[in-house]
Amino acid sequence: MVERTFHFEQALLPDGWAADVRLSVDQGMIDAVQAGVAAGPGDKRHRVALPGLPNLHSHAFQRAMAGLAEASSSGDDSFWTWREAMYRFVARLSPDHLRAIAALAYAEMLETGFTRVGEFHYLHHDRDGGRFADLAEMSLAIFDAAAETGIALTHLPVFYAHGDFGAIAPSEGQRRFVCDVDGYAGLLDRLRRPLSALPDAVLGVAPHSLRAVTLEELRAVTAGRQGPVHVHIAEQRREVEDCLAWSGMRPVEWLLGHVEVDPNWCLVHATHMTAAEAAGMAAANAVAGLCPITEANLGDGIFDGPAFPGRFGIGSDSNVLIDAIEELRLLEYGQRLATGRRNIMGGGPGRSTGGELYRRAVLGGGGALGAVSAIAPGPADFVTLDMDHASLAGRSEDAILDGLIFAAGSRAIDGVWRRGRQVVAQGRHVDRDRIAARYRAVLAELLA
Amino acid sequence: MVERTFHFEQALLPDGWAADVRLSVDQGMIDAVQAGVAAGPGDKRHRVALPGLPNLHSHAFQRAMAGLAEASSSGDDSFWTWREAMYRFVARLSPDHLRAIAALAYAEMLETGFTRVGEFHYLHHDRDGGRFADLAEMSLAIFDAAAETGIALTHLPVFYAHGDFGAIAPSEGQRRFVCDVDGYAGLLDRLRRPLSALPDAVLGVAPHSLRAVTLEELRAVTAGRQGPVHVHIAEQRREVEDCLAWSGMRPVEWLLGHVEVDPNWCLVHATHMTAAEAAGMAAANAVAGLCPITEANLGDGIFDGPAFPGRFGIGSDSNVLIDAIEELRLLEYGQRLATGRRNIMGGGPGRSTGGELYRRAVLGGGGALGAVSAIAPGPADFVTLDMDHASLAGRSEDAILDGLIFAAGSRAIDGVWRRGRQVVAQGRHVDRDRIAARYRAVLAELLA
Repeated sequence: MVERTFHFEQALLPDGWAADVRLSVDQGMIDAVQAGVAAGPGDKRHRVALPGLPNLHSHAFQRAMAGLAEASSSGDDSFWTWREAMYRFVARLSPDHLRAIAALAYAEMLETGFTRVGEFHYLHHDRDGGRFADLAEMSLAIFDAAAETGIALTHLPVFYAHGDFGAIAPSEGQRRFVCDVDGYAGLLDRLRRPLSALPDAVLGVAPHSLRAVTLEELRAVTAGRQGPVHVHIAEQRREVEDCLAWSGMRPVEWLLGHVEVDPNWCLVHATHMTAAEAAGMAAANAVAGLCPITEANLGDGIFDGPAFPGRFGIGSDSNVLIDAIEELRLLEYGQRLATGRRNIMGGGPGRSTGGELYRRAVLGGGGALGAVSAIAPGPADFVTLDMDHASLAGRSEDAILDGLIFAAGSRAIDGVWRRGRQVVAQGRHVDRDRIAARYRAVLAELLA
Repeated sequence: MVERTFHFEQALLPDGWAADVRLSVDQGMIDAVQAGVAAGPGDKRHRVALPGLPNLHSHAFQRAMAGLAEASSSGDDSFWTWREAMYRFVARLSPDHLRAIAALAYAEMLETGFTRVGEFHYLHHDRDGGRFADLAEMSLAIFDAAAETGIALTHLPVFYAHGDFGAIAPSEGQRRFVCDVDGYAGLLDRLRRPLSALPDAVLGVAPHSLRAVTLEELRAVTAGRQGPVHVHIAEQRREVEDCLAWSGMRPVEWLLGHVEVDPNWCLVHATHMTAAEAAGMAAANAVAGLCPITEANLGDGIFDGPAFPGRFGIGSDSNVLIDAIEELRLLEYGQRLATGRRNIMGGGPGRSTGGELYRRAVLGGGGALGAVSAIAPGPADFVTLDMDHASLAGRSEDAILDGLIFAAGSRAIDGVWRRGRQVVAQGRHVDRDRIAARYRAVLAELLA
């Protein structure tokens, strides 16, 4: 179902809010945006439209273990015991499992307002660690899920070579992830053609973390690239301590000191930084990849928002709960809990916290994923709201975003369009029943 | 619609999970619970039933300002600037406004699994501060909202006499709240008869805070009472500092040292306690009234869960966002962010965090509200889940609660019954459309 023209009472355009906005869409692309015009007779009309949010960090397969690591194992649980549970879970996944799980996760992302996902994909090999005949086997399952659900994909195949700082050999739990520089280059080459068949897809690179790569490897996989470069960094305090013990430097400090970090870089988490690291990262114009729900679930800690003047976006990471709007809410709430003050990420007097959060996440996340979402000429991706929701009724412009993020939550998201096609209606993905049924069958197999 | 018999594949009973549970219900009351029995031909069948959650702390009227205080005023916003905005908002509310707002709030509470609300009600007088001809005018609006939506009510009329520590005169913003000890006693007397017409209603007392009462008044309104006693305490650091400056003692320390705190007491927030205060409060077996969403929104801080071995429940407080399940999730996530560990409120090795959170909130919140919700003889109040939800499929017993709280969220709540009557179906209150339309009309008036 491709609509040709849309009309919104209010829409958030790249320059700000506009009233009576009319879009014309051809072949999935917005070719004209007019403000201050009446609706035409055949227009598809909605009250309020927003650009879609970018989800800059996802491990789709982890959706299937959501909620399964919330019982205490030892009575002394941490990120690291969670990671062991994740390694045990990952050992069972086939390409078909991944396809079904990713489709469910991507449908849920669309339902809460994400229109693009950055899939940080490290699950390359077969269950016994052996290479698939086709190196891209698992990535292709991701592409299928993106195609099926309609979400835009920035694919971030992960380079993962070692088990810890100092080029420690990978553990058995990591055997499905590892490759060498040549193998990784081969994978990237293999991915280009199938990825080009996915509308608006982007290819990036992702050295997993400073634990998983040597300096030489890091330079080999990132040097001279134009597209996104993503890396996990400074998520856990122990990681900072281990990095200090290994190098005498903290993770972000080490990264900034050893490679050319530029605006294509996304530093995922960057939770534990000194003020100097935060300033250095902002000076490099790298994007902070913040994943508030996962960072709370894993006990990572709270990003120091006031210390970081740079760009950020949000990611659903472990996908323990997929909710773009709750990510934004929890990002701000973490700041308030840490500082004892209110309206921290909103940019100052008179500024709407919800409005600033939404705009910054659209721009920062889009920058990190190599494609900024906007109600402007380009892919016709946007989100419409249920303005009858009690928390939105009677509001306009940024007060809508304050209501959406802090009072209504994602239940107020009504429709989502990708390339002019409605993929979410009344808050549900148009193929949800089929995708969910297949997911449940896969889950029954995995939990058996 | 009163059902006579129900059958659940799994149900959380007071002694724990049971399979194949059959209830018979007469006049809204469960009169028998059998486990391990097959469904009868006329049974209303559901997969999973839970006891309803108590919402131990609500200011219903604040629902209408949800999202309206999320833009920065001065650039240096805090609880205290928020409170000024709240005072300005409250100055406009009529009894009819309150009735409509509370009905919307209570419908939303039921939709997310709350079956009883503790309404901490301080909005007693008319807009100009004048007394209504009927002292109970505003309370009666609350009773109407409870009756209309079906939620069980613990009414907590607030005693509020002063503006700050040391019996400072109340400000103009507080003029609708204040009364003296005799006036308060008159209000309680006036409320008994109308309250007795509300099924399962409970009456308690609520000295507002140590700022609002003298020791003499505190003793006068709480001494010798049998029912719930609720008080705001130690929510903000400035409140602790002001209490120290006034008395040389911290708020919880002062309270425990000056009145007999017993298991009927609910100390709302109790965010800022020393280890000695936490131990003293637990020894008194008072309930900690935790309101994680509001405490995050207002920048109050994180309750120290590991330091407090006592009873707790959850409250939606400012009602900025009403979601029982998110309250439980954020309670645990605050603990993880503060400690850097996982599964903090779950009680140790092998214990489900979600299961323990749910059970403790049911028992502690019920204790605080003078009526414990249970699938047992008594009012037929319970919640059923959508077990086709991707985060619940294939799970049983406590793994269901881990999935509900951490992975699915309140969208997985399907049905809610109060006194055997279904008040929520497919996640929506049965009267939602009418209640929401009236609420929107009131809001349009208030925001005009």
